[in-house]
Amino acid sequence: MASIRDVAKLAQVAPSTVSLVLNNKGYVSEASRKKVLDAIEKLNYVPNELARNLYRNSTNIIGIIVPDVAHPFFGAFIGALEIALYKYNYKIMVCSTIERENAEHEIVDMLRRQMIDGIIMGCHSLEVDLYDNVNKPIVAFDRIINNKIPIIRSDHEKGGRLAAQAMLKAGCKYPLQITGIKNSSMSAYLHHSAFKDELSRNGIEVINYEMEWNKFDMNYFKRVAVDVFEKYPHIDGVYGADMVVCACLGEARKRKLDIPKDIKFIAYDGTFITESSFYNITAIVQPINILAQKTAEMIVSLIKNENIEKEVIVPISIRYGDTC
Amino acid sequence: MASIRDVAKLAQVAPSTVSLVLNNKGYVSEASRKKVLDAIEKLNYVPNELARNLYRNSTNIIGIIVPDVAHPFFGAFIGALEIALYKYNYKIMVCSTIERENAEHEIVDMLRRQMIDGIIMGCHSLEVDLYDNVNKPIVAFDRIINNKIPIIRSDHEKGGRLAAQAMLKAGCKYPLQITGIKNSSMSAYLHHSAFKDELSRNGIEVINYEMEWNKFDMNYFKRVAVDVFEKYPHIDGVYGADMVVCACLGEARKRKLDIPKDIKFIAYDGTFITESSFYNITAIVQPINILAQKTAEMIVSLIKNENIEKEVIVPISIRYGDTC
Repeated sequence: MASIRDVAKLAQVAPSTVSLVLNNKGYVSEASRKKVLDAIEKLNYVPNELARNLYRNSTNIIGIIVPDVAHPFFGAFIGALEIALYKYNYKIMVCSTIERENAEHEIVDMLRRQMIDGIIMGCHSLEVDLYDNVNKPIVAFDRIINNKIPIIRSDHEKGGRLAAQAMLKAGCKYPLQITGIKNSSMSAYLHHSAFKDELSRNGIEVINYEMEWNKFDMNYFKRVAVDVFEKYPHIDGVYGADMVVCACLGEARKRKLDIPKDIKFIAYDGTFITESSFYNITAIVQPINILAQKTAEMIVSLIKNENIEKEVIVPISIRYGDTC
Repeated sequence: MASIRDVAKLAQVAPSTVSLVLNNKGYVSEASRKKVLDAIEKLNYVPNELARNLYRNSTNIIGIIVPDVAHPFFGAFIGALEIALYKYNYKIMVCSTIERENAEHEIVDMLRRQMIDGIIMGCHSLEVDLYDNVNKPIVAFDRIINNKIPIIRSDHEKGGRLAAQAMLKAGCKYPLQITGIKNSSMSAYLHHSAFKDELSRNGIEVINYEMEWNKFDMNYFKRVAVDVFEKYPHIDGVYGADMVVCACLGEARKRKLDIPKDIKFIAYDGTFITESSFYNITAIVQPINILAQKTAEMIVSLIKNENIEKEVIVPISIRYGDTC
């Protein structure tokens, strides 16, 4: 295989000139540049990217930390992020923290060691200390890490209010919402508070059903659905994230409830699974493509040392289906 | 920040000794090793991973090429692969080819340039020529690239037969299957052939409905569902991949068909979406965790230059739900 020296020899320039051309840095005359590029083509030279990265001190890789890449929301978000970052010439390294306690530490460590150029942090970890002394490009997706790290999220407060108003309009009297454990670092919790407040202002009390921390598997959601209907058989409305609402719809079928006459459902996130089955589920839709585009812009600006907003909040909307 | 020279100085060894310790290579006496590790700790030295990679000529990153990370099957597969590869100390770089024609080329190029150590290739591209002169670790997931690249897949033939037998047992007379375009490089097509053959042997003709190439969005599947029932209103069985079967269930509801009395459904893949809604959908289940584990073993063995099997076929099973 041809080396950088072979290229330099054929082009009749110094190896350092070849390096400048490869890395598009420094001054090289057009004549020399052409000679180098011709030699590269003639020799079919493939630069060792590791050596180039060392020179540039960057890898053009962004690490993305999520709880679970297999979750429909995070899967769609990663897919959209990949496309958005690709336009800026970045590739993505994906890290799910579920089942791997140490994964978050390792990605932060990779950032310190310059194996990646930045991190988009969207997992539910509680270890915010980890980020205290990392002065490198990090964007927090939908969570608060500390006051130095910028955050991007949907307008969850409005999302919660839209859901509450739809429940009110549908004549719901006994709504129940299914939440994760309340945690001050999770901005997504805001939609649950807004849902409760908005209904409360209209004289309707919401039952809060709290799930275990960071659970994402369907079998767990099905157990939750059974428990919800056993404990609260009188409810006439269910509000929660896509997957657990799907599980509750299945349980309502088993109990021969008429949807939406007997009971209404609104899902939060509005991923494809709310549109993919028997009913089109009425949903508050997080605009995944816009979130991904803004997140990509933010991390690229940080890497370039440009000024950025500390908080970006993206509008949200309701999509009516058959369930409320 | 401390450099490798600072560590060497404090430990009273040569910088090359520090390098040997960091990379766990060559002979270093226990006494020297301890001195180096102590110095690293005292100085809080963080090695530049790029320099280490250059020395080791590896990055411990595996590139994974799929059509769409947001697809429930590929999302789950990537999640499981990430966990499986993590045990071997590899991280993953994800690349979806949908919407990005050039992505596959670029990942192969990264492998050539030593930015990644191997590729798990699971996308539906037709450009198998691309791989002709790449003598680096590549595993083909569920597709045939060429006779040098090993393949791993489920026992699709058995999957198709199991589905056919379930349809027969349920008394299905007019089954329809929804396929992607038939392509000889896609091993997954085998289950469609087996389904058709098994029913044919029992005197039942299967209608083949062919979808467009490489389409993965729910709106497209819903249009397919409408078209299927408009063109073939007499069918009493539908067999296809998870998402399109979900869409057909929704269409059957609109047409007030009684499930499974009037019409039966069997989905292929059996991802969480077949379990996440109103009906539990009867499904042929690809064992995603086993596929991921075997794929991880295969690529790691290739990187280590170990002998491997050229084809690994993983058993498959049927999971009965409410739809057949």
